Amino acid sequence: MNIAVLGSGEVGRTIGSKLVQLGHEVMMGSWEEANPEAVAWAKREERNALFGTFANAAAFGDIVFNCTRGSVSLDALYAADAKNLRGKILIDTSNPLDYSDEKHWKLIVSNTDSLGEQIQRAFPDTFVVKTLNTVHNTVMVDPDKLVERTDIFVSGNSAEAKKKVTMILQSWFHWKHVIDLGDISTSRAVEMYTLLWRSLRLATGAHRFNIKIVSA
Amino acid sequence: MNIAVLGSGEVGRTIGSKLVQLGHEVMMGSWEEANPEAVAWAKREERNALFGTFANAAAFGDIVFNCTRGSVSLDALYAADAKNLRGKILIDTSNPLDYSDEKHWKLIVSNTDSLGEQIQRAFPDTFVVKTLNTVHNTVMVDPDKLVERTDIFVSGNSAEAKKKVTMILQSWFHWKHVIDLGDISTSRAVEMYTLLWRSLRLATGAHRFNIKIVSA
Repeated sequence: MNIAVLGSGEVGRTIGSKLVQLGHEVMMGSWEEANPEAVAWAKREERNALFGTFANAAAFGDIVFNCTRGSVSLDALYAADAKNLRGKILIDTSNPLDYSDEKHWKLIVSNTDSLGEQIQRAFPDTFVVKTLNTVHNTVMVDPDKLVERTDIFVSGNSAEAKKKVTMILQSWFHWKHVIDLGDISTSRAVEMYTLLWRSLRLATGAHRFNIKIVSA
Repeated sequence: MNIAVLGSGEVGRTIGSKLVQLGHEVMMGSWEEANPEAVAWAKREERNALFGTFANAAAFGDIVFNCTRGSVSLDALYAADAKNLRGKILIDTSNPLDYSDEKHWKLIVSNTDSLGEQIQRAFPDTFVVKTLNTVHNTVMVDPDKLVERTDIFVSGNSAEAKKKVTMILQSWFHWKHVIDLGDISTSRAVEMYTLLWRSLRLATGAHRFNIKIVSA
């Protein structure tokens, strides 16, 4: 499958490499056609790894991963162009974080709206599925490294798109337990969780962790 | 020990009953001196269960539990009176939730402030420790009912107060694993988590659940 990974940061490179390993052709999209990080990444992967602008990548992908920083995701997606995203599934892994105060991370949008919803409103002909934003990128593609099975979430308006993304999470990334939280407005819940994630990271000193839902 | 439980709703009654069972004298505080719920609760408990105004209860307690609804907690605590709370530990279990839109719960304060911080600022001579707000009241006092050990959090500015509250959580309520998230500003993280709690409740159909942190 041809897959677009928008963003050449750590998340994009980690997901991109995993997808290449799985045998897919991956184009990493950036603001510039030849972003140095993306070029270096493609070189390291040797085969099936391409790079280009956000628009090049979005046009190339049958499925699109948004791995850009939440604070610039909407702009990056506008640059990718609605026509290149039309009818496609957009897997949104981003969090609308403002890191400017190191002690107190905060969200740019929250509580009564979310980045997931903003993206869905801006691209109504695209099937936005929010997922993977609740874990560090090392956990996203390798949940088996944790000592127990943990949970990952999907939020989106299209049941069919969530079903496909759930299959991707299960068969490509080995997430054994995927919880459908509901429509895209449940992005609020998972995006707001990132502040607890951050506190847990500081309290435990580790970034490789996740939560497991335990019932009675 | 003499303990004040502010609030005669489900949370206050559940915690109050547990404390009575443990052999403590408990006064349930309400807006009115003889709130019908509090009177009925005291009658059911038969012994060691008292009722009164918020101020009566706060004056009575060596330790104070805030179990009022988050939207009225500050007013309830003003009614309890700063002089009755001075030098005491206030265990704050509340969440600043606005339930007016049933589909989309939202927080009255969040992201750059929290109810825990508001309470601490309003009562600077009281040791506020935020805890237990991440679980349903049936789980608060009975975490052993869940099929696995799960995690509970404490947030507060006083290390000594958090240590005492941790001992209370461990020895009275059987929370085996208490995570210190940091100062009272980490209330933001646990209060904002309530939206994910709500989504999980709707997705799983159960309210008796909690999260367990799983690391690598």
